[in-house]
Amino acid sequence: MENELMRVLKTRRSIRRFKDQPIEADKLATVLDAVRWSPSWANTQCWEIIVVTDMAQKEKLQATLAPKNPATKAMVGAPAVLVVCGKEHAAGWYDGKQATRFPDWLMFDLGIASQSIGLAAHSLGLGTVIVGLFDQAGADAVVGLPAGYQVVAMIPIGYPDNDPSAPKRREVSDFSHQNTF
Amino acid sequence: MENELMRVLKTRRSIRRFKDQPIEADKLATVLDAVRWSPSWANTQCWEIIVVTDMAQKEKLQATLAPKNPATKAMVGAPAVLVVCGKEHAAGWYDGKQATRFPDWLMFDLGIASQSIGLAAHSLGLGTVIVGLFDQAGADAVVGLPAGYQVVAMIPIGYPDNDPSAPKRREVSDFSHQNTF
Repeated sequence: MENELMRVLKTRRSIRRFKDQPIEADKLATVLDAVRWSPSWANTQCWEIIVVTDMAQKEKLQATLAPKNPATKAMVGAPAVLVVCGKEHAAGWYDGKQATRFPDWLMFDLGIASQSIGLAAHSLGLGTVIVGLFDQAGADAVVGLPAGYQVVAMIPIGYPDNDPSAPKRREVSDFSHQNTF
Repeated sequence: MENELMRVLKTRRSIRRFKDQPIEADKLATVLDAVRWSPSWANTQCWEIIVVTDMAQKEKLQATLAPKNPATKAMVGAPAVLVVCGKEHAAGWYDGKQATRFPDWLMFDLGIASQSIGLAAHSLGLGTVIVGLFDQAGADAVVGLPAGYQVVAMIPIGYPDNDPSAPKRREVSDFSHQNTF
């Protein structure tokens, strides 16, 4: 079934080339509001978002990526980079103990928040790409994170300068199952 | 700024009480299509979704939750439970090695896919709740997952039987930062 939500979801692409055009403050505020309204483990809301627009900071963050990373140019070409960080030992933890077999439920909740960012941005005509392959510990230092927080992903954001085609997707019938695997 | 995407995102609630009413096949197909169009690490698409509608299976999955879990009743009260699984060593891995400091980037990508599920469902009038606190290894066994795959979350889905208010959120100004933390 088609509706506006599905249109936004299906037409979103990972954007790695950006126009030299700033993001309006109200659009950026809306994208951050999309994080705010995301669900999270027991409403722990472990997210912290650092909006990097300073070129020297963007260059330092860019240096945490391998030069071959297809998003390297986007780290300075985009007018802003959203650094997605999480507070440790909140999501997935109870009484100071890990409550599931996964050490970092914060990864799951930051994935949720990142999808909110990508969809909200695209609904406003902005492009994003989620960058995961970089030296996260190096990025912690660049943004001055205190102990107990971790950089997980970085999301360059801005007006798209190209219109890439969609990478091939697995069919629903290939990844869905009835009652058992 | 308000638009339809933001309306859906902001009005979604975690739903734990469901009507005794089946989900139309085309709506369920749309929700699964929302997973298909989610972004993922290097397009690895590590997701596997098990649609559980069989009552005996739902009861076995319910038994992997603590009785006190606020979602326990939803596990059998919902007409379907989506069991969100991931293939290991795909997202966040290169050449058989972990490429970031995080052992399970699959958690991030399944978080993305779960937000797609929740938003697509809500856009169609369906409610969902993401369940994370349960015995994931027990659930692996219930759904018959082969080695190399893991159950991460379970999402009861159906027509909402209540209209809960939103839990309190942190303000954007409390979690956003300019250039440095």
